[in-house]
Amino acid sequence: MSKLVLMRHGESTANYTKTFTGWSDVSLTKKGKADARMAGQLIKDTQILFDGAHTSYLKRAIETENLVLEEINQLYISQFKTWRLNERHYGALRGKQKATVKEQVGENQFKEWRRSFTAVPPQLENVAETRRYRQAGIKEPRAESLEMAYNRLIPYWIDQLAPALKVGKNELVVAHGSSLRALIKYLEKIDNQGIDGVEVENTTPIIYTLDSNLNILNKETLKN
Amino acid sequence: MSKLVLMRHGESTANYTKTFTGWSDVSLTKKGKADARMAGQLIKDTQILFDGAHTSYLKRAIETENLVLEEINQLYISQFKTWRLNERHYGALRGKQKATVKEQVGENQFKEWRRSFTAVPPQLENVAETRRYRQAGIKEPRAESLEMAYNRLIPYWIDQLAPALKVGKNELVVAHGSSLRALIKYLEKIDNQGIDGVEVENTTPIIYTLDSNLNILNKETLKN
Repeated sequence: MSKLVLMRHGESTANYTKTFTGWSDVSLTKKGKADARMAGQLIKDTQILFDGAHTSYLKRAIETENLVLEEINQLYISQFKTWRLNERHYGALRGKQKATVKEQVGENQFKEWRRSFTAVPPQLENVAETRRYRQAGIKEPRAESLEMAYNRLIPYWIDQLAPALKVGKNELVVAHGSSLRALIKYLEKIDNQGIDGVEVENTTPIIYTLDSNLNILNKETLKN
Repeated sequence: MSKLVLMRHGESTANYTKTFTGWSDVSLTKKGKADARMAGQLIKDTQILFDGAHTSYLKRAIETENLVLEEINQLYISQFKTWRLNERHYGALRGKQKATVKEQVGENQFKEWRRSFTAVPPQLENVAETRRYRQAGIKEPRAESLEMAYNRLIPYWIDQLAPALKVGKNELVVAHGSSLRALIKYLEKIDNQGIDGVEVENTTPIIYTLDSNLNILNKETLKN
């Protein structure tokens, strides 16, 4: 038996201004940091001892994870960072306020871009090369559907998370609204339509208890 | 050419009370955190892009490193943690105030325990087993001379740091007063007597420029 804890990062400056973000590397707000610590206290109460902690390359996730590890007094565990856990890339929507986009394209299109599995947001024309992705051997995408995010995330599950969980290790994943929706879709075998209704709240830990075949024995969401 | 940056953690609660610490896992003070951020700003000015960041298993070093990486906006780089970078183990001196020990044993003995390469402090009778060291496959020592700390630290240099630096990678090491003295002794080929006079201050980055044979081309200490 193993424990897998999934958590979305704390409130970011882009969450606060209700702006599409994706791979933009925005900071946590003061509230986001405080909520991360509170979530850490909730996780502490479970007394789970983690073997590894995993985040995206984005600082809102990494800072959140660091605050959680501080609160649970497990800063010494191994931390892994991967672009595969990055938020879904919102393409040309990034930096735009959600309300403005909704007004411009109408509620249906807006909802489809946000919640459907296959819809690809408008693509960026150019993507600047940045060090972290060049070093990882990839080019930043011009936009991603949730499906595209799913397809680049699942290899990380298969190669890194599943093998650890199968041998009884406990793993913490701090990532993003859409990348966690993709992972939850995979774990809970949710179909392409069903995932539309799944939302993942900031700093609300989801704890899966898994058997050695990674069947879900229990799922619990921790709330204050 | 590569850059190696060594830095001692920020002021800890034990630094503040002038207490022997070693492997005890004490926190940073508020000043320690602020100083870590200031050191981060000094490192930021150098514009070094790091490939990896290395700390001990002790949270005063890990928290300091996290604050530095936040300030230099390089939270996405790989972080490595190892007991081999832990502070020297102060044995039965740990938890004792330095002034009290000095009074009890006299200045000469006190100085020898603190600064000589070979003196072993009084040993602990029992060492409780803790998860992090059990998982690393070791037993916490009952006490260490600086030489003993040196001998368990250098394998990490040889296996992890040197290979990265030889191929031109830039590496950040955030560790402890004595573990950094041991590393500096090795790097600068300081003899057993010479190391007595070397002190490493909190949150004061030391930047080595190394050639591909790890000869030191330049050494610079950054101060506010």
